[in-house]
Amino acid sequence: MNFCSDCGHKLILAIPAGDLRERHICNQCSRIHYENPKLVVGVIAHWQDQVLLCRRGIEPQKGLWCLPAGFMENGESSDEGAMREAEEETRAQLEIESLYAVYNLPHINQTYMYYLAKLITPKVEAGLETLEAQLFKQHEIPWSQLAYPSIAAALQQFFIDQKRGQFPLIHETINSQANLLGNAS
Amino acid sequence: MNFCSDCGHKLILAIPAGDLRERHICNQCSRIHYENPKLVVGVIAHWQDQVLLCRRGIEPQKGLWCLPAGFMENGESSDEGAMREAEEETRAQLEIESLYAVYNLPHINQTYMYYLAKLITPKVEAGLETLEAQLFKQHEIPWSQLAYPSIAAALQQFFIDQKRGQFPLIHETINSQANLLGNAS
Repeated sequence: MNFCSDCGHKLILAIPAGDLRERHICNQCSRIHYENPKLVVGVIAHWQDQVLLCRRGIEPQKGLWCLPAGFMENGESSDEGAMREAEEETRAQLEIESLYAVYNLPHINQTYMYYLAKLITPKVEAGLETLEAQLFKQHEIPWSQLAYPSIAAALQQFFIDQKRGQFPLIHETINSQANLLGNAS
Repeated sequence: MNFCSDCGHKLILAIPAGDLRERHICNQCSRIHYENPKLVVGVIAHWQDQVLLCRRGIEPQKGLWCLPAGFMENGESSDEGAMREAEEETRAQLEIESLYAVYNLPHINQTYMYYLAKLITPKVEAGLETLEAQLFKQHEIPWSQLAYPSIAAALQQFFIDQKRGQFPLIHETINSQANLLGNAS
């Protein structure tokens, strides 16, 4: 961040009065440009004993499998965003059930919220930025081709919880990519 | 948003290739400037039958009572952010227990996450940007002087849940300030 998005003036880095952190500040128009984490919203969408995955058509991690998810947009709620992402990426028609997992990834300034969702029909197809959309039983999951370790962790917990019929909220902080790789067997 | 924060060039509004929404785009350096919702993190911190509130020392809603909360910062997890905000605003020492409430406020592009937290000591005091910090029993809460309707809603539910000893996750979308005012009796 070099220039003020309001007035175009060069920015400086300084701690504003009453603050504790360095911010990008415009000395011309006085605006302080805060940078904050982004919310990524997605679904673990199920149909009987299958879950919905999609294969990424764009970088990063192009060609690897993902839960439908993406950046929450202004003007929507987190559950609306999760449903929109699923629709965009897999054309899925679904009902959001409950918030299931919160993953903090502070090293990349992202917080993930995954919702449990029930598919209304098993008909899915590749949407925007997606190569394939497909339903998988547990033993069919392409564990070694998942895009992110948090996806493996969430899926493994989902199948455990589905067997016992209880879905307590998952809440974890993942400090680096390596953190959960051991689980993604 | 008028100027590119990278190169300082004037921005245009257009829908990027493969996107569905208008974004601020720089025609000089090609950067797309996305704008996304912000996460606000806070606590419902309790000591026996009391909860912790603080009176705002800054606008908006200066002089009104709030749960300790603020914008999540880069590099932290949501629960760390909630604890940091409580410490900054009330000097509270506390232990985070669980995520208790998610409020989406799409009209102002914010998502709130409130954590249940146990105070380690009842000693609190006004911190940065705060006029007073105080513990309140249910009948002592200044209901008519709460800064936001989501605070009244969260507090009312907390006292109900505390009586029955169960704290199921609250998940609501508040579409305008008026939405929950009826509850804030």
